[in-house]
Amino acid sequence: MQHQFFIKDIVRDYECDLQGIVNNAIYMHYTEHARHEFLRVNGISFSKLHDEGCDAVLAKAEVQYKSSLRSQDEYISCVSVAKDGLRYVFSHYIYRSRDKVLCVKAKMEVVCVVNGTLAQGYPIIDEFINKINNAPLIEI
Amino acid sequence: MQHQFFIKDIVRDYECDLQGIVNNAIYMHYTEHARHEFLRVNGISFSKLHDEGCDAVLAKAEVQYKSSLRSQDEYISCVSVAKDGLRYVFSHYIYRSRDKVLCVKAKMEVVCVVNGTLAQGYPIIDEFINKINNAPLIEI
Amino acid sequence: MQHQFFIKDIVRDYECDLQGIVNNAIYMHYTEHARHEFLRVNGISFSKLHDEGCDAVLAKAEVQYKSSLRSQDEYISCVSVAKDGLRYVFSHYIYRSRDKVLCVKAKMEVVCVVNGTLAQGYPIIDEFINKINNAPLIEI
Amino acid sequence: MQHQFFIKDIVRDYECDLQGIVNNAIYMHYTEHARHEFLRVNGISFSKLHDEGCDAVLAKAEVQYKSSLRSQDEYISCVSVAKDGLRYVFSHYIYRSRDKVLCVKAKMEVVCVVNGTLAQGYPIIDEFINKINNAPLIEI
Repeated sequence: MQHQFFIKDIVRDYECDLQGIVNNAIYMHYTEHARHEFLRVNGISFSKLHDEGCDAVLAKAEVQYKSSLRSQDEYISCVSVAKDGLRYVFSHYIYRSRDKVLCVKAKMEVVCVVNGTLAQGYPIIDEFINKINNAPLIEI
Repeated sequence: MQHQFFIKDIVRDYECDLQGIVNNAIYMHYTEHARHEFLRVNGISFSKLHDEGCDAVLAKAEVQYKSSLRSQDEYISCVSVAKDGLRYVFSHYIYRSRDKVLCVKAKMEVVCVVNGTLAQGYPIIDEFINKINNAPLIEI
Repeated sequence: MQHQFFIKDIVRDYECDLQGIVNNAIYMHYTEHARHEFLRVNGISFSKLHDEGCDAVLAKAEVQYKSSLRSQDEYISCVSVAKDGLRYVFSHYIYRSRDKVLCVKAKMEVVCVVNGTLAQGYPIIDEFINKINNAPLIEI
Repeated sequence: MQHQFFIKDIVRDYECDLQGIVNNAIYMHYTEHARHEFLRVNGISFSKLHDEGCDAVLAKAEVQYKSSLRSQDEYISCVSVAKDGLRYVFSHYIYRSRDKVLCVKAKMEVVCVVNGTLAQGYPIIDEFINKINNAPLIEI
């Protein structure tokens, strides 16, 4: 599979629930963290955006749970992004490292609320999208 | 709006992120807690199911974020359920209490994994679904 | 036992970890939520304090874990407060509802940082402390 | 400063609360994760211990909050351990990477509950303590 960006990490024990598997909501955290890292390494800070009056907020999330991560599993959290109208659409794939099994596939649609009003986008994010869509993909 | 079940609660400050709004992943917690309370008041314990070898796991989540909850907002978390093939499909609606604004609408598809194998369902959950689908709805 | 304030709540399943018990860090959330509710019902909003430039921050936490809460246990989270120098010292006791077993005892020392500088306190919090220390205690 | 073990990581945005700083409870997660990693690289799995009937549980936590971590700060989470009677006493120091400012200092006392009974310890953890106390410290 090819993606625009990825991070590797390990399941933290407190992220597992009483079934011994990573809790559903935690995958939302994993995808958020991958998105924010993707932005950060490209010079965009989520907290600075907020300080400037631009809140990037999730409008819609679709998450498919394919296989469960467990205590101390290593995983690869991949992300790609494109713009569709007002929306920045992030595609997420989370794989277990040791066997490349797909654990979670998600589509996250983000919009920008600038000074309280839904906006067409935000300049530095639009520039980032243009740049990244012309960059080569990464093979995982 | 009419639903099968609801709980009322208040946003806890630690559930808000640096944007001052409830973090996306927290709504997954809100819906999970509403589902488990819905089961619990109908005599089904999520942790006992696990001890019996039945893990009810999320297969798919679709979440639409309509309006943000903020620090100390009171909310009403509503849920209804139906069975569709193997899947228990939970419909969630979270409203801000003071003005009944819809904050989150979600569809959660749950399957049962019994002793490690995907099952057609689980008897006490199927009985619960039958019972609840013959009960009157609650007007919020 | 006598306290100045309490809230009742129920353990949410996602608050339990793979040992089947409420995770250690969650009790920090329980105590924070009890403190903020204690303030809120007395007219003080944690998020408004922040907007005014006053951040009430934890300087020290001492937590004794006596007994574990489990899935869907109901609990009573009690709190009292006094001022000691710069510090607001909150005493927390969390009991399991069904048998009044003490689960957690904690002492939390909070200071106010006003516009970035450690302050002697904050007027509306000091007034609240004076008022509450003259009010009758509640028997749990 | 010298420690027995450390991990480096970065603050995740969802770990910050509405004050824009890492929430108090999250430092409990940081210290737990550092302890479990410390055990894991020495061949001890927290979840396997649980499966064997040994639950390592926190008996007491003392946390001093010295300086706040913020969005996307990198940090170094250090840990050392010694045995004191029944208790494994972990000393934690969390530094902000860019300037080595101490953010959190904590002492965590852990006991083993084996098949439901408080134990004097647990063999593989005792062996680990002996080994690590004869190993050279790491300079951060």
